[in-house]
Amino acid sequence: MRNILLELKYLGTEYHGWQVQDNAHTVQEELQNAVELILSKREPITGCSRTDAGVHANMYCCTLRTESEIECYKLQGALNAKLPPDISVVDCKDMPEDFHPRYSCTAKQYKYKIYNQSARNPFYEGRALHYRPKIDVEFLNEQAKDFIGTYDFTSFCSIKTDIEDTVRTVYNASVTVEDDLVVFTVVADGFLYNMVRIMVGTLLFISEGKRAEGSIKEIIEKKDRKAAGITAKACGLYLDKVYYGGDFVG
Amino acid sequence: MRNILLELKYLGTEYHGWQVQDNAHTVQEELQNAVELILSKREPITGCSRTDAGVHANMYCCTLRTESEIECYKLQGALNAKLPPDISVVDCKDMPEDFHPRYSCTAKQYKYKIYNQSARNPFYEGRALHYRPKIDVEFLNEQAKDFIGTYDFTSFCSIKTDIEDTVRTVYNASVTVEDDLVVFTVVADGFLYNMVRIMVGTLLFISEGKRAEGSIKEIIEKKDRKAAGITAKACGLYLDKVYYGGDFVG
Repeated sequence: MRNILLELKYLGTEYHGWQVQDNAHTVQEELQNAVELILSKREPITGCSRTDAGVHANMYCCTLRTESEIECYKLQGALNAKLPPDISVVDCKDMPEDFHPRYSCTAKQYKYKIYNQSARNPFYEGRALHYRPKIDVEFLNEQAKDFIGTYDFTSFCSIKTDIEDTVRTVYNASVTVEDDLVVFTVVADGFLYNMVRIMVGTLLFISEGKRAEGSIKEIIEKKDRKAAGITAKACGLYLDKVYYGGDFVG
Repeated sequence: MRNILLELKYLGTEYHGWQVQDNAHTVQEELQNAVELILSKREPITGCSRTDAGVHANMYCCTLRTESEIECYKLQGALNAKLPPDISVVDCKDMPEDFHPRYSCTAKQYKYKIYNQSARNPFYEGRALHYRPKIDVEFLNEQAKDFIGTYDFTSFCSIKTDIEDTVRTVYNASVTVEDDLVVFTVVADGFLYNMVRIMVGTLLFISEGKRAEGSIKEIIEKKDRKAAGITAKACGLYLDKVYYGGDFVG
């Protein structure tokens, strides 16, 4: 059985996230339909993570298990011909049998893009958060450093479950300027549900004085979703990089 | 009579260009409708240039003549509330009576964006030309320098008219890398119909060996549209900057 890694980019605006759901348009469904058209068989596709409705991916990894002998470059070309313009396969290669897009992943990087000008920018519609109050980038960058470390991130998780392990290790967190955007970048070994969006909502609360300067450690310690800020809109969020094995050593 | 300058950004994908036409959706029409809703009167709006269907604007200037006493910041806010998300008013200010968005303009800068990778990028769909053959940026940048100067650009104009003066001065022309795009930037005192898109089509013809290295001067001299390359797709073109008076001295 082949284990083919597909690396995707997608604009999430029109999708109800990655994962197949009843009565919802998803990226996984589009990909499965395209594979079925090409291989004349419905083959299992496994993704590296769920993404929320409206969230984008600069890099998303998934695997396709198949007995087909189609060459990778042909499969990639055929998929790109069948897929809608908002999804693209940028790489396609055979992996060892034991490679798993989720379990083999050592870290993920997300970016959250903010357009911080008073008038909206049509080019960032659905692609960045339009946020008007002036952000002090250097100040927020200092605040964001407090996310770095191994903590129970319950305060930064939308859904509380008893079973799930809520401890994650954040390797890096920063706020920088990229072109005309303010960008929050975060790398961790894993992320809880809505974690990045709540981190951003909390940073913006600190920026607005709704949470105190230097309060992130305290918010983490409280293990209470209500201690953190709001969940920032999905449209600014990008799964930016997925690390495997030696690619990233935290 | 007030003479209000509106500076816009727009994503041209859904529009049949700037200028009002019968049975076509245009940017000017959207703006006039929004102004009419706000001022309860249809007021004349004059643009700095036509743009083709699907062409974008990072900066587009137009003027609104009105007797209304509405404050500029209020007009801007109201327009942005009424306009569709793909058009934004980024500045609004009163200008002297004799300011004219087209005649007062001393130069314009266009950018043409090319995504030069084999797999398409969903984020550039409708926003850059997807062009697969590898571009030698340094080589094309050298070629592009031959556009600089004052010439009859008939070879780079789609529609031939006897009356029109086809002499233009190109102040600058370059091919550079910006992020993950190859960008052709050109500044001139004015542009003929489809001029930038034919310049790009010609550069790509040179890149492909369909026109000789160093042939641009010769193509200009021929004053024949057939001597140049194809007209590159509209989706990669951006009106990027409009210069007035002292802003730009060629």
